[in-house]
Amino acid sequence: MPQTDDVNLEEVYAFALQLAKDAGKLLDDAWRARCNGDGLVDQVEKESSVDIVTQTDEARAGSHYSRTFKDVEAFVKMKIESRFPAHHFVGEEAYSKGASRDYLIGQDPTWCVDPLDGTVNYTHIFPMFCVSIAFLLEGAPVIGVINAPFMHQTFSACRGKGAWLNETQRLPLLRNPIPPMPKDAPKGCVFSCEWGKDRRDRPDSNLHRKVESFVNMAAEISGRGGKGGMVHGVRSLGSATLDLAYCAMGSFDIWWEGGCWEWDVAAGIAILQEAGGLVTTANPPEDPDTAKIEEVKVGSRLYLAIRPAGDSPTETARQGQERTVREVWKRVRHLDYVRPDA
Amino acid sequence: MPQTDDVNLEEVYAFALQLAKDAGKLLDDAWRARCNGDGLVDQVEKESSVDIVTQTDEARAGSHYSRTFKDVEAFVKMKIESRFPAHHFVGEEAYSKGASRDYLIGQDPTWCVDPLDGTVNYTHIFPMFCVSIAFLLEGAPVIGVINAPFMHQTFSACRGKGAWLNETQRLPLLRNPIPPMPKDAPKGCVFSCEWGKDRRDRPDSNLHRKVESFVNMAAEISGRGGKGGMVHGVRSLGSATLDLAYCAMGSFDIWWEGGCWEWDVAAGIAILQEAGGLVTTANPPEDPDTAKIEEVKVGSRLYLAIRPAGDSPTETARQGQERTVREVWKRVRHLDYVRPDA
Repeated sequence: MPQTDDVNLEEVYAFALQLAKDAGKLLDDAWRARCNGDGLVDQVEKESSVDIVTQTDEARAGSHYSRTFKDVEAFVKMKIESRFPAHHFVGEEAYSKGASRDYLIGQDPTWCVDPLDGTVNYTHIFPMFCVSIAFLLEGAPVIGVINAPFMHQTFSACRGKGAWLNETQRLPLLRNPIPPMPKDAPKGCVFSCEWGKDRRDRPDSNLHRKVESFVNMAAEISGRGGKGGMVHGVRSLGSATLDLAYCAMGSFDIWWEGGCWEWDVAAGIAILQEAGGLVTTANPPEDPDTAKIEEVKVGSRLYLAIRPAGDSPTETARQGQERTVREVWKRVRHLDYVRPDA
Repeated sequence: MPQTDDVNLEEVYAFALQLAKDAGKLLDDAWRARCNGDGLVDQVEKESSVDIVTQTDEARAGSHYSRTFKDVEAFVKMKIESRFPAHHFVGEEAYSKGASRDYLIGQDPTWCVDPLDGTVNYTHIFPMFCVSIAFLLEGAPVIGVINAPFMHQTFSACRGKGAWLNETQRLPLLRNPIPPMPKDAPKGCVFSCEWGKDRRDRPDSNLHRKVESFVNMAAEISGRGGKGGMVHGVRSLGSATLDLAYCAMGSFDIWWEGGCWEWDVAAGIAILQEAGGLVTTANPPEDPDTAKIEEVKVGSRLYLAIRPAGDSPTETARQGQERTVREVWKRVRHLDYVRPDA
């Protein structure tokens, strides 16, 4: 297997950037073709199920979405394999074909790709869909490129080279100076969250835990028995990848979510970390005030992201981010998404 | 006062289109200037209050947001007044200066403008902000133009001339054929809703009524005592104007909201209606199965919007939309936003 030392990051980054743009063009062509009547309207649903992914391939069979997804994944995989034949490739398709539920990404140079993130958005032609391409070394995402063709937005980052919107605007966008985290965070923060596909209406289901957490974050400060967070806004886009990208931009202060897989988050994490953001676990520890704040595991399925921050007169950027993490942990419930061997 | 007969709609439409693009350019310049350090970061909050609007002007004083808002409104008003001096002009500024809470738009030719919709988004530089310009005759929005400069999206419509994205793509986007409403709607639908600014944590507050409605729409079909709607996705963008625009595009099947004012919705309603959508009231009538489905009043503050639909083998487009309205009404609570003399 190739050694990490052999990898020329600059070369890989340039390749990934072009690849995301080319793949984004395929997505762009595909939705435009649908508008011209080429392709049925097929609102294929991933029904509520613990086993979402394995069910998906069947449900998608024959649908336009499925064709687009498979075409773009095949294109990206082919391009990577011919240019970097020794690298690993991890995608949703590979996973759903029966890989175990182990962590999928090891120490070797690995590509992790979601050819079409924002499934439901794409199906309904809501612009928040994208292709997401990450490259990892020793399990860490060091390159990420996200292309959202409908909105003409490309987010990219390579470790040590900054994070960028459309290769010209450095992220976060507000950086003269980068604003510190609000002093009463989560008050003043834009909070991004997703309803997801697990809609079981059972006591203490993930749906109920999520909604309880959302309401805590949203309610007035005096509300919810002291848990009211009075966030500035609550947003739900339907794309984990773009949630992370907008955290990197500084648009979203906080993103909290469970249930994603590696390909949903790897590129976004690379971009957010390079922009100066913090990503850790969604699930609150026993003592949120004192627990060590660990760096996220890409395959953990539980994510809490904080935007890049600046120093304030009274605390460093990292201190402000960690304070925000603790305040979120005090307001959210544990989510029940497991990795069997985690 | 000018008579409706004197109005040349084609001339007004061309003028409104150019005006929205010019005003959008001002917004685009303003956020870019902030990125370059010109302007403080000022997350001015409209605190929770029944009387949100009158409080706003003070809270905004001196902020970058306030300057941008006022500059763009002054520009738009000046342009309209010099070209069409006999027309009325209604904007948030005029209203907050002490106009009564009467319906603001009468029978005469009237412009209704929101120079910057998506306040919180703009403040945090999340791309979902826009300028919104409507022209009304006899109280009905007959022209609407929305420009969202960060995303390069212009939505426009003039009665009888179709609704358009960027003047080139007719709305809804999927139109060969236009999909009928899903047979089990709201299942299969993308449901757009907003958390809003009223975050009071009191029994039966608007926050609680909204959340109860959101959860009904989201939960599995068997859940919530039969009210589970299992929508395909739940989205919250933080812009009523863009919620309506994405309904016109066909991206959102259902938008349900209370609390907006005329300038938040007038242009969006013009575009959605011209695209073939239905807009009625958010609050369910006594008998949702049989009540007449009235056309929306622009100033009603309560909105339920359904996307343009096609006929199915078993029902007309309108029948499918009305069926969807009734199914939403069965799942949502009354919201408590009043118009004192309504």
